[in-house]
Amino acid sequence: MRIPNPGYPASKLASLYLRMNDVYLDYNATAPLRPEALRAIGDVLANVHGNPSSTHAFGAAARAALARARKQVADALGVAAETIVFTSGATEANNTVLRQAARGAGRGAHLVTCATEHPSVLEEVRALESEGCRVTILPVERDGRLDAGRFEAALTPETRLASVMWANNETGVIQPIAELAARAAARGVPFHTDAVQALGKLPLALGALPVDCASFSAHKLGGPKGIGALYLRRGARHAPLFRGGSQEAGRRPGTENVPGAAGFGAACQAACAELAQSEARHARLRERLWDGIHAALPDARRNGAREHTLAHTLNVSFAGASGEALVEALDLEGIAVATGAACHAGSTEPSHVLEAMGVPRELGASAIRFSLGPGVDEAAIARVLELLPRVVARVRGARAA
Amino acid sequence: MRIPNPGYPASKLASLYLRMNDVYLDYNATAPLRPEALRAIGDVLANVHGNPSSTHAFGAAARAALARARKQVADALGVAAETIVFTSGATEANNTVLRQAARGAGRGAHLVTCATEHPSVLEEVRALESEGCRVTILPVERDGRLDAGRFEAALTPETRLASVMWANNETGVIQPIAELAARAAARGVPFHTDAVQALGKLPLALGALPVDCASFSAHKLGGPKGIGALYLRRGARHAPLFRGGSQEAGRRPGTENVPGAAGFGAACQAACAELAQSEARHARLRERLWDGIHAALPDARRNGAREHTLAHTLNVSFAGASGEALVEALDLEGIAVATGAACHAGSTEPSHVLEAMGVPRELGASAIRFSLGPGVDEAAIARVLELLPRVVARVRGARAA
Repeated sequence: MRIPNPGYPASKLASLYLRMNDVYLDYNATAPLRPEALRAIGDVLANVHGNPSSTHAFGAAARAALARARKQVADALGVAAETIVFTSGATEANNTVLRQAARGAGRGAHLVTCATEHPSVLEEVRALESEGCRVTILPVERDGRLDAGRFEAALTPETRLASVMWANNETGVIQPIAELAARAAARGVPFHTDAVQALGKLPLALGALPVDCASFSAHKLGGPKGIGALYLRRGARHAPLFRGGSQEAGRRPGTENVPGAAGFGAACQAACAELAQSEARHARLRERLWDGIHAALPDARRNGAREHTLAHTLNVSFAGASGEALVEALDLEGIAVATGAACHAGSTEPSHVLEAMGVPRELGASAIRFSLGPGVDEAAIARVLELLPRVVARVRGARAA
Repeated sequence: MRIPNPGYPASKLASLYLRMNDVYLDYNATAPLRPEALRAIGDVLANVHGNPSSTHAFGAAARAALARARKQVADALGVAAETIVFTSGATEANNTVLRQAARGAGRGAHLVTCATEHPSVLEEVRALESEGCRVTILPVERDGRLDAGRFEAALTPETRLASVMWANNETGVIQPIAELAARAAARGVPFHTDAVQALGKLPLALGALPVDCASFSAHKLGGPKGIGALYLRRGARHAPLFRGGSQEAGRRPGTENVPGAAGFGAACQAACAELAQSEARHARLRERLWDGIHAALPDARRNGAREHTLAHTLNVSFAGASGEALVEALDLEGIAVATGAACHAGSTEPSHVLEAMGVPRELGASAIRFSLGPGVDEAAIARVLELLPRVVARVRGARAA
């Protein structure tokens, strides 16, 4: 089912139906649903009718489905099931953690984060700053990574939380989370990580790290949109963002999204089962893509250090071409990529992530992100390499004209 | 798929699989998914893969599915599509509205609500009170309704919001929303209604009323769990509860729950198409249930005035029997009912709703709620009437023994 959008240019509408060779390379925006997740959600939607809070058998069946999903998510993280709180997504999880850290701490509360974080961390942190918190937003090195020494030096006795994302959504750059969490722990500072892009892409083993809380989203790894999770280590401080019910052991009021949780659990299980294989496969395909780009367009510039980057993510600047125009031109050829975060797609602001990495403004505005996933194969990469040089030339030409 | 819950008594586990004559009378806790919603969700899960914020064709298809769902929800309310903001549920919607009203208003902000509201209103209002707001929680009359004169008298120039639920989840009592909203408008006070239990049960025609905002939940009318909506009249003040993205026209950050929205839209359309018929059908079945209860157990007491009550809801006290014990005993017979709100099920606190209506404590603790829906037929009612007198006698006997 492809539904034509009245707001979508008429010239593109036909292609919504006709294109048989679509190449989807925007997995960091959202991943198509995994078949395991589709089955799990369908089972719950069709057969589990109760409210998990109800005491009767229908409620018990819903509680059981929810418990099963929670165990699957927890297993993927290497933690106990009761440390997982289901949320509506990572935006809610990130907002909850940050607000909790600031709440009740008075005007002296200090928060530490990093310049390349997702807007659901950065915008919330800035809002808390305007409400009286003291905020340190640390710069990153040119490779996109936070220096552990610089991080530790920012921690003070008043620091209520340090929040650093595990892997970046735009560049795939992986932060040294184990090292950062250990330094925070040594200073007695609670540590949170937005691990949305890392789950299902990296082995996390969260339970073995001194991480106090972490945020996750199902739809980035092939689960459904509309559900995420907050990991709360035993004993971690927590204050719910909502009020009005004792669901999730009092940690997140509101009737639980049971089908969503089931899909999330199934996606976690499937993604983790194939993690080692998919990481190797993505790295191979991604390097083939980069090698092809580099060979055809020697002035293309790769953003983010390859050795510290998620295997499925490639961020490339094409000097002299607008990233937005490239995304649009590739879309007409049936290739879906992004300039950066989907939540700010269409914005003409240059990427704050590339800017923080010292990428010059003009190069930042010419960047596009390729993000791979289970549906991407050699043929897809070959198709991109066949079309991309012409598309880049056309976009550069249009600009020069 | 019925999944046995390790926490569910072993004596009941077999029945999770074997019962063929289950009677589900707990629609106010959650309604089984409507087939139209199941189809709509399945279509989106299987075919709409993009992130609505992505500019490419996959994003456009997701935007189109979301726009279609938004239109269906808006049509059910008689409002324009752009006034609908999707949320994770009504708890989020209620919390958002109340917090927005208090935000920035300083310590002088005054909020008016009612003693029989859902905990997602009452607990949030009490939290705002502890943060410095002035709060008036109005009592209700013995029939559960708010007196319009008393309501108006509570409004002051400092009142930032009046919030009154459209219909009560425990008793089905319908508030005189048109009258209350008109009086609030006359005093220049923004008016919010938690309309969760009213949507799909009553004709709402929200656009014709001076209601500024309203909260809805999909799963109460046969849509999926995990999605709700906030109606915001054009020009209504609003501040998002989350930060981090420009989704929902900047009114609710976070990747949209597209499959959930599709299910919500389909459920709205289906429920509203059959509204007049189902209201008459439920009223007939409900009165048959009450007549049968009253004939067999003359001391049973009906809570809530019949003429101002949702057609599918019946709240009855059985003096001398504990409501909790009745729910449990009926569950063993395959009949699912509730004592009150599912979100507080299992709690031994008496219902705050019945207490506010002046129902004596002992009678309040002996109340159970029957709530009907599309899956309930004459045979189901006959089965309840066949079993209920014996169950009540047994529970009363056990207590007396």
